[in-house]
Amino acid sequence: MTRARLRDLGIAIGVLATGAHNAITDVAGVRVGHTTLISGEGALVPGRGPVRTGVTVILPHGGNLFRDKVHAAVHTINGFGKVFGFEQVRELGLIESPVALTNTLNVGLVADALVQHAIEQNPAIGISTSSVNVVVGETNDGYLNDLQGRHVRAEHVRAAIASAAAGPVAEGAVGAGTGTTCFGWKGGIGTSSRVVPPQDGGFTMGALVQSNFGGARDLMVNGVPVGLHLRPPDAPTRPVRDAGSIMMVLATDAPLTSRQLRRLCARAAAGLARTGSVYAHGSGDFVITFSTAEPSAHEPASLTAARTVLADEARAMRWLFPAVVEAVEEAIVNSLFRAETTVGRDGHTAYGLPIADAAALVREYQQQTGAAT
Amino acid sequence: MTRARLRDLGIAIGVLATGAHNAITDVAGVRVGHTTLISGEGALVPGRGPVRTGVTVILPHGGNLFRDKVHAAVHTINGFGKVFGFEQVRELGLIESPVALTNTLNVGLVADALVQHAIEQNPAIGISTSSVNVVVGETNDGYLNDLQGRHVRAEHVRAAIASAAAGPVAEGAVGAGTGTTCFGWKGGIGTSSRVVPPQDGGFTMGALVQSNFGGARDLMVNGVPVGLHLRPPDAPTRPVRDAGSIMMVLATDAPLTSRQLRRLCARAAAGLARTGSVYAHGSGDFVITFSTAEPSAHEPASLTAARTVLADEARAMRWLFPAVVEAVEEAIVNSLFRAETTVGRDGHTAYGLPIADAAALVREYQQQTGAAT
Amino acid sequence: MTRARLRDLGIAIGVLATGAHNAITDVAGVRVGHTTLISGEGALVPGRGPVRTGVTVILPHGGNLFRDKVHAAVHTINGFGKVFGFEQVRELGLIESPVALTNTLNVGLVADALVQHAIEQNPAIGISTSSVNVVVGETNDGYLNDLQGRHVRAEHVRAAIASAAAGPVAEGAVGAGTGTTCFGWKGGIGTSSRVVPPQDGGFTMGALVQSNFGGARDLMVNGVPVGLHLRPPDAPTRPVRDAGSIMMVLATDAPLTSRQLRRLCARAAAGLARTGSVYAHGSGDFVITFSTAEPSAHEPASLTAARTVLADEARAMRWLFPAVVEAVEEAIVNSLFRAETTVGRDGHTAYGLPIADAAALVREYQQQTGAAT
Amino acid sequence: MTRARLRDLGIAIGVLATGAHNAITDVAGVRVGHTTLISGEGALVPGRGPVRTGVTVILPHGGNLFRDKVHAAVHTINGFGKVFGFEQVRELGLIESPVALTNTLNVGLVADALVQHAIEQNPAIGISTSSVNVVVGETNDGYLNDLQGRHVRAEHVRAAIASAAAGPVAEGAVGAGTGTTCFGWKGGIGTSSRVVPPQDGGFTMGALVQSNFGGARDLMVNGVPVGLHLRPPDAPTRPVRDAGSIMMVLATDAPLTSRQLRRLCARAAAGLARTGSVYAHGSGDFVITFSTAEPSAHEPASLTAARTVLADEARAMRWLFPAVVEAVEEAIVNSLFRAETTVGRDGHTAYGLPIADAAALVREYQQQTGAAT
Repeated sequence: MTRARLRDLGIAIGVLATGAHNAITDVAGVRVGHTTLISGEGALVPGRGPVRTGVTVILPHGGNLFRDKVHAAVHTINGFGKVFGFEQVRELGLIESPVALTNTLNVGLVADALVQHAIEQNPAIGISTSSVNVVVGETNDGYLNDLQGRHVRAEHVRAAIASAAAGPVAEGAVGAGTGTTCFGWKGGIGTSSRVVPPQDGGFTMGALVQSNFGGARDLMVNGVPVGLHLRPPDAPTRPVRDAGSIMMVLATDAPLTSRQLRRLCARAAAGLARTGSVYAHGSGDFVITFSTAEPSAHEPASLTAARTVLADEARAMRWLFPAVVEAVEEAIVNSLFRAETTVGRDGHTAYGLPIADAAALVREYQQQTGAAT
Repeated sequence: MTRARLRDLGIAIGVLATGAHNAITDVAGVRVGHTTLISGEGALVPGRGPVRTGVTVILPHGGNLFRDKVHAAVHTINGFGKVFGFEQVRELGLIESPVALTNTLNVGLVADALVQHAIEQNPAIGISTSSVNVVVGETNDGYLNDLQGRHVRAEHVRAAIASAAAGPVAEGAVGAGTGTTCFGWKGGIGTSSRVVPPQDGGFTMGALVQSNFGGARDLMVNGVPVGLHLRPPDAPTRPVRDAGSIMMVLATDAPLTSRQLRRLCARAAAGLARTGSVYAHGSGDFVITFSTAEPSAHEPASLTAARTVLADEARAMRWLFPAVVEAVEEAIVNSLFRAETTVGRDGHTAYGLPIADAAALVREYQQQTGAAT
Repeated sequence: MTRARLRDLGIAIGVLATGAHNAITDVAGVRVGHTTLISGEGALVPGRGPVRTGVTVILPHGGNLFRDKVHAAVHTINGFGKVFGFEQVRELGLIESPVALTNTLNVGLVADALVQHAIEQNPAIGISTSSVNVVVGETNDGYLNDLQGRHVRAEHVRAAIASAAAGPVAEGAVGAGTGTTCFGWKGGIGTSSRVVPPQDGGFTMGALVQSNFGGARDLMVNGVPVGLHLRPPDAPTRPVRDAGSIMMVLATDAPLTSRQLRRLCARAAAGLARTGSVYAHGSGDFVITFSTAEPSAHEPASLTAARTVLADEARAMRWLFPAVVEAVEEAIVNSLFRAETTVGRDGHTAYGLPIADAAALVREYQQQTGAAT
Repeated sequence: MTRARLRDLGIAIGVLATGAHNAITDVAGVRVGHTTLISGEGALVPGRGPVRTGVTVILPHGGNLFRDKVHAAVHTINGFGKVFGFEQVRELGLIESPVALTNTLNVGLVADALVQHAIEQNPAIGISTSSVNVVVGETNDGYLNDLQGRHVRAEHVRAAIASAAAGPVAEGAVGAGTGTTCFGWKGGIGTSSRVVPPQDGGFTMGALVQSNFGGARDLMVNGVPVGLHLRPPDAPTRPVRDAGSIMMVLATDAPLTSRQLRRLCARAAAGLARTGSVYAHGSGDFVITFSTAEPSAHEPASLTAARTVLADEARAMRWLFPAVVEAVEEAIVNSLFRAETTVGRDGHTAYGLPIADAAALVREYQQQTGAAT
């Protein structure tokens, strides 16, 4: 993992400051874990391999999520995808399990593993208390991976949860991003964060994406049409696909209602658009947002719950909208910058974006800006 | 299965005629299959049993659903539930797999089994063509069943599909209805159908439900407050629950767009309300509707597709709305009338509704109507 | 207004107690005002008359609604209608004007009158502060009224607001209900309320409807198919229409978020269904719900707002769901019971429901219930 | 109108070709008309002036829209706005009136004027046939205009409709764009179009916007952060506002269902984001899309309607998504390039963007692209 992130190369997207790690984990309490599955090479043998896939989990806090649920919202930009758990989040405005990302055909098994995990933590589930709603997202890594094999099993989900940690987040070809491709290059996991100015509340907004969409020609980095200049070596022969997908997970410590969190979800679409996406037909583009502030108890102690939430008119709210846009855009770019060239099934190769060239292009454009700000 | 259906006892809901079997299978091509899992008794041992659950599958047609998708819509009345596959149906207006119903915590495994089934029928999935979106619904049968055990496995789904047939449909404590309860009584699978008058198109509308909601006091049958008169033997001691859920699957041979099918979905809420439901907080109430007319090819032969659809203003459309309401109401009542007393985990007992008493109550009320129509 | 309400005749819908006036005004602070427009008779002269229409306003509180907005939600059961202001209520969860009901083609002018009213109370609107979102609903009274004439003008809206009062609410052929028809009979304005048991919070839920839907055959009162027995004198010759519409306005003093208020909205569909509606194609069926608890200031004093809201799991929430269903059902029945026979354009006559006969029918059925409860 | 459009200055957004006029009127049959209201100057006298507002109408075809409705969809990106007619378009998938754009507080009166227009063309409305659903959008031009005055009256709407024409479309400070501001500059009406390659169907997609959003710093043109370099002269003293709004109207001759048209609507968000919008809190961002192909008759001649629609998988559909994104982005930029400096109420001035400087900036950036494509 010697590849640099965008900001390491002197290129900053937007105007807001990042958190300490420029990662979703900058939101206090949020933890991320990956299990990366790589095995075999050569010709695809469905059900056997090669395997280039994995699972990534995002834990809103380190406690028992079923007992202390986080306020949340979901949003579908383009519904060509197989997410799990969205209906209940829409109805109740809560998430009560880790959020897991994986490959498209593995959603059922990963959801089952999350159910098992919740039961182990909460033996009363389905016996003396309600059942549990788990949340899973996915993108299709079938270009590199034996998708039919559904190689992510319960033990891999368990390991990802066990390894989840605060601090820096591994990006690129790891976890659920092991086998994905983006703008014709190797994509994967990317993350970024933004901080609201202290005088306006100082809240943190973090984004983590699983990128797997777009054609090579369309890539834009910080407004620069990098895709017009840089193309993967196999671009001429590679099938044009408008398929793909992206999962975007947002976290914040700002105290917000599910209505307000849904509004933040909707802004992720702007960040996505600025990288070159047109939310293509075959791309399932989904957003999941949660707030770590004031979790909701599974068994409330009283009839009413006092919550302190941001006013829609608060200056903090106005910062959170561009914070989402900037963090999503940079998370997507980081997913490209950090992903190593990966060879998968049938010798399919997803090349790592040549980051020096890409950064040079962006800088050349930006020289025009001189002292501007 | 000697228990009678409502209509066998001389009580007809609504004004429209039923199809030949008064079942969802009256829609030509639709097939239903169940796998019923019953084993063990006595004290609950989580993960072991007792088992009172199963899976029910509805096949829109007898061909390859992935190759020939049916136009469809979904609708969420109350989203406290864990359905699978809804986002893509909303976006694309198509169903491309059997629709499966099962218990709440089993959705992941059943979804995975449907994926496996689709792959077996279509080896290109995820390799040289797109992935597959499967549709699964659920209700919580944990009062009778070892819910944590997720006892429905791939082979049970496979068996349900293999056994799916046209003609009469087994109702009550079978398949996904094996362990459910409804209005304090044993609930389960119920079905009904309606036929649009021949001069207005003669289309068939069928409903199949998995009933698992409601308190004993609330039950209404054909407008008669049966719940005020009949109570289960254990009503005084049984915990009051507003949990529960209902899955409602609607099928029609009328040629409709996904927009129109969504409108039919919304009318299921009226049929449900007439049985006494208030869409309680803990009840996940979902509707899935498909049309068997003019399936959509996975790989269209041409740029455009010519479809012949009903005009919104057509008289047939006006009949289809009450047809949904009547069929859903009767399907729910049938699920009660047909369900045998079932003893499950920890000796929990869901009693079969005393149908002679219930029917007598309804008839007494109806005697008031005399020659009315 | 000598016609009795349903409950005056000894028939109670549901199990919950009503408020003092069995009206939406039982929610403290809520006020209702009507302007009734009746002029001319005989042949329709479009733009002239006869006029049988009006406007009804519901004021969530007696203060300045733009300064102190109420938390709110809206819900569309069937969108065949021309409501005003829904998008912003969905986005922000607030209502900041009186809610007005009128005839279909008059929505634009009534909205404009509400804008004028808001400006008069708040001269800064659109100059030094934001604009105002007004909320208007409608049904089509064209069977009795010169609909094209749009006879409701600004002065009528102003008069309705000025006359708005707490306490008993005029029902039937008044205000926005002057010219509407329902189940083939004269419909109009109806209202009802329910009170959550004191030990569970004692909150009040009120409903007010403008009823204008349904065919004569379909009417049910408290589960009794009254429409099978009682038909309007002109039923045989009257055109069968599935058009119509209903506006349902709900008020509560329970402290709820817009998400929770949207859930209450959705339960109105159950109350509507129990009167015989199938949400017919041509019927615009809409719900508007607000909470009078803890209004939201136009210019919040601080960055955050502390709100105390009911937990979803609170027993009070469980009562509020059936409270909506019961209040809506009874409000619709009241709109029929209280509406006098009205002769309108072209001699079209909407007969008042023969309430003695209807009540007798319901009581006969109910005698079957004996001492049951 | 001597100001150039973006493309006149040698800058092309995207890769698709434009139609003949690079305007929404490139979709055959579509006509656009404006009424521009300018009067008074100096201090604001609410209700009197100065007046800087107007109305713009888009006619999907030149016939009777109520008799021959066009398939349509609407989409709300941020619902802080007062659009009219959206609920019925969502339910029925049809538009049956001209689409009108105006100022925020004028929506009621403009809607009423459209109702009057529909009645004049169709005297049966509300008498012997159904009522009419009109569609109106708005943005807040109160920085320059006497918003409270609601100066757009029926005669102005009538004049706009009467003047509606095919061919080139007046842009900038005209019609509904007379008083709007965008990215701190004078905004207004802008339009653009794209054509699908002939071998893939050759369909046309047109966009027309009423732009009124954004802060000066945020403006991007073709990916270039113009807002970092160019600021309005009064930028330092001007109040920072995240208010504003944008209406986006899309037209196409591609034969699409309302479901597919809704998908096109959603892609407008990407075009909007690329100009620098984050869909700010106070910005009502709405999309209206219609297809001129195969209108739907008010009174269908037969039970069923045969429609020929594009397959989702058709190559044409894949082009239509970027076509929306490109046309919306360019329409917004055109609205800025074409708008003259306008002085309004209280001497408030919205400066025309210095287009030579802006274009030079974009070209400098683009020189980096060399021979790339």
